[in-house]
Amino acid sequence: MAAKANAIIAQSGGPTTVINSSACGVIQEAIKSGKIGKVIGANNGILGVLKEELFDVTAENPQAIEALKRTPAAALGSCRYKLKSLEKSRADYQRILDVFKAHDIHYFFYAGGNDSMDTADKVNKLAADSKFELITIGIAKTIDNDLAYTDHCPGYGSVAKYVATSAMNAGRDTEALYTTDTCSILEVMGRNAGWIAAATGLAHRTEEDAPHLIYLPEAPFSFEQLVKDVKEVYRRLGRVFIVAGEGLKDEKGEYITAEKTTLATDSFGHAQLGGIAEMLKAVIEKEVSIKTRFNKPGTNQRSAMHFASLTDVNEAYMCGQMAVKYALDGVSGKMVTLVRESNKPYKCTTGLANLMDVANGEKKVPREYINAAGNGVTAAMLDYVRPLVKGEAPITIGDDGLPVYIRFEKKTIAKKLPAYM
Amino acid sequence: MAAKANAIIAQSGGPTTVINSSACGVIQEAIKSGKIGKVIGANNGILGVLKEELFDVTAENPQAIEALKRTPAAALGSCRYKLKSLEKSRADYQRILDVFKAHDIHYFFYAGGNDSMDTADKVNKLAADSKFELITIGIAKTIDNDLAYTDHCPGYGSVAKYVATSAMNAGRDTEALYTTDTCSILEVMGRNAGWIAAATGLAHRTEEDAPHLIYLPEAPFSFEQLVKDVKEVYRRLGRVFIVAGEGLKDEKGEYITAEKTTLATDSFGHAQLGGIAEMLKAVIEKEVSIKTRFNKPGTNQRSAMHFASLTDVNEAYMCGQMAVKYALDGVSGKMVTLVRESNKPYKCTTGLANLMDVANGEKKVPREYINAAGNGVTAAMLDYVRPLVKGEAPITIGDDGLPVYIRFEKKTIAKKLPAYM
Repeated sequence: MAAKANAIIAQSGGPTTVINSSACGVIQEAIKSGKIGKVIGANNGILGVLKEELFDVTAENPQAIEALKRTPAAALGSCRYKLKSLEKSRADYQRILDVFKAHDIHYFFYAGGNDSMDTADKVNKLAADSKFELITIGIAKTIDNDLAYTDHCPGYGSVAKYVATSAMNAGRDTEALYTTDTCSILEVMGRNAGWIAAATGLAHRTEEDAPHLIYLPEAPFSFEQLVKDVKEVYRRLGRVFIVAGEGLKDEKGEYITAEKTTLATDSFGHAQLGGIAEMLKAVIEKEVSIKTRFNKPGTNQRSAMHFASLTDVNEAYMCGQMAVKYALDGVSGKMVTLVRESNKPYKCTTGLANLMDVANGEKKVPREYINAAGNGVTAAMLDYVRPLVKGEAPITIGDDGLPVYIRFEKKTIAKKLPAYM
Repeated sequence: MAAKANAIIAQSGGPTTVINSSACGVIQEAIKSGKIGKVIGANNGILGVLKEELFDVTAENPQAIEALKRTPAAALGSCRYKLKSLEKSRADYQRILDVFKAHDIHYFFYAGGNDSMDTADKVNKLAADSKFELITIGIAKTIDNDLAYTDHCPGYGSVAKYVATSAMNAGRDTEALYTTDTCSILEVMGRNAGWIAAATGLAHRTEEDAPHLIYLPEAPFSFEQLVKDVKEVYRRLGRVFIVAGEGLKDEKGEYITAEKTTLATDSFGHAQLGGIAEMLKAVIEKEVSIKTRFNKPGTNQRSAMHFASLTDVNEAYMCGQMAVKYALDGVSGKMVTLVRESNKPYKCTTGLANLMDVANGEKKVPREYINAAGNGVTAAMLDYVRPLVKGEAPITIGDDGLPVYIRFEKKTIAKKLPAYM
């Protein structure tokens, strides 16, 4: 490969609190190595490559690059553009290589989930077929923590910390006001995997502490069981705090919808309006007759830099840094994984997995991490997640008392190719 | 008054992040003064008085009392029990005095909003009529910041900080993913007053920064204007971040409901299901055709001790402390107010207002704090709120990396009266 070839970095899919920390690791390590030319940013993920919307990351202020560690969401811009198979989306893949060639890009660093690893793998294979020298390294990124072949995913530790603390805080609110506001629901993300919901078990240090019930997609859910569970907790504590993963499923593995129960159906309204929390609220108010409210932090749970996990921030950085080191060692077609060398004391290093394997895999919460009743988590789950939330990530506070985040200048690199899309 | 008479402290209504800090101020100052006997806690607010469910706060571990400053929600327990007029609820008021008499309670410290100040005032008046020596001091507590005669309310600074930071964080998420997830709504509390929504203006440091539109109950809302506003911001920035107070009202001052617009009504479902964010989402997706999502932090916004305002925590403590000092000076029938001596530099002291005046007053966001279009706030609003969010309140972090909160032991004081309710 030509000396000082350029590298491209792209961020894909739903942002996380620490995806910028991984980008920081890539950029700083690439500059430090002295072996890479420019680090080029793709504006809005793979869309930026396809549209040849590129900018010079190495021209950004070094302080802005450093501040990536303390800025949530995707500073390069992200997107949800899904490429299909090589056969169906061949023009897209070819375009990606054309853009890489035009800009002397021979290193491709791609942070994302399964779909992104699939894209990266296919770009890498087409490059090999076309005899285009390309080193492709994937960097795990997903709050859902559902990637296989890695102990956990950068982004998960911070969302876990945020939702556990949210359950703790709102749980105290419910405890204070239980004589009227008796039941609360915290709806958290995770459409297919329940890692986020499961992490709230950290807040349940004693029987008194919220959450009292945790429902996740891996444990078959029924409204009948919900009503039974809520009545039991209410009888015991006089209040109920529930965490619900957004993607609860029934015994057949189908998403829970309002139509799937005979309980309180008249309270539901149009099913497409309500998330899972609204459905649970309607059933509990009708069948248990206790006032129920819900909190839905939504995208706040994946962008809460002001209370991020230092472990997560550091590991995300390490993944970015190691991506460059592996690349300069000639590794390609792999994703950097996190390897838990030991749990007590917690020690985590990096490893490698084939992009294709990660693309085709999925890691759900295992049965032994869920309690027998399917409404809570086990000590094994808590042992798994506990180290990941530790440490307070530093943030910059402005004169106004609020966090300060950076925005890249994004100095545009002139286009060299005809418009594509 | 007999030397060393007992004091009672009760917390009322929706909890805040710092109501315990006020309690801490009362308890520590009462102990320090040496002039008050026991500080008695009412379990779950005025309900605890009516039911004679009392506990000895002075018997709690001093470290637990100190830790109140770092524990959200109401450690004594709160309630939503509303007493009516002296004529209609006379038995209740008499019962309160009977309980006070039975337990030698001659100081009544009551933290709450307007309704609580009304209750406190009536208890105080009945005591005077009955020649029962009672000193009654109210302590302002409401995240809504809607109490009159005080510059601001303890509890507001922390919720302001939380929602501004939430807008900042989620705004970055929307900015990263705007090519698909184009519009986001943050629904915040405040059914009648828009102080909380208005505070998110702090996050809007530049035109790029969220929130781009802020709707509050004081500015007449219409879906037609919303659509126009959203289109304008979308055209300018390619993305839209909206903050909506939960209690938006139309030009007649009536709450916005799904029935009140001809736009997208078929998307609404049953109106009672959806909060304001769901309604806005439905209209925007139908009329502007951009994907819209919403975050609803709910009770998390009023319990976020992990990112509370130090100014708020300290002022809440000061209000509690001064309540005792005023009481020992013989002041009664008053609420401790916050007085802004100067804004730059910010200096805040305490004052006094008549309980009855506070009970009958209400402080809404004034017109000059809202922009001309009714979809944002002015520099005057930001000058008002800026000092209130400043400073990082210390919290205790446990070995597990998460906050540690205390729970009182609540050593029960034996009942001396027949059961009442």
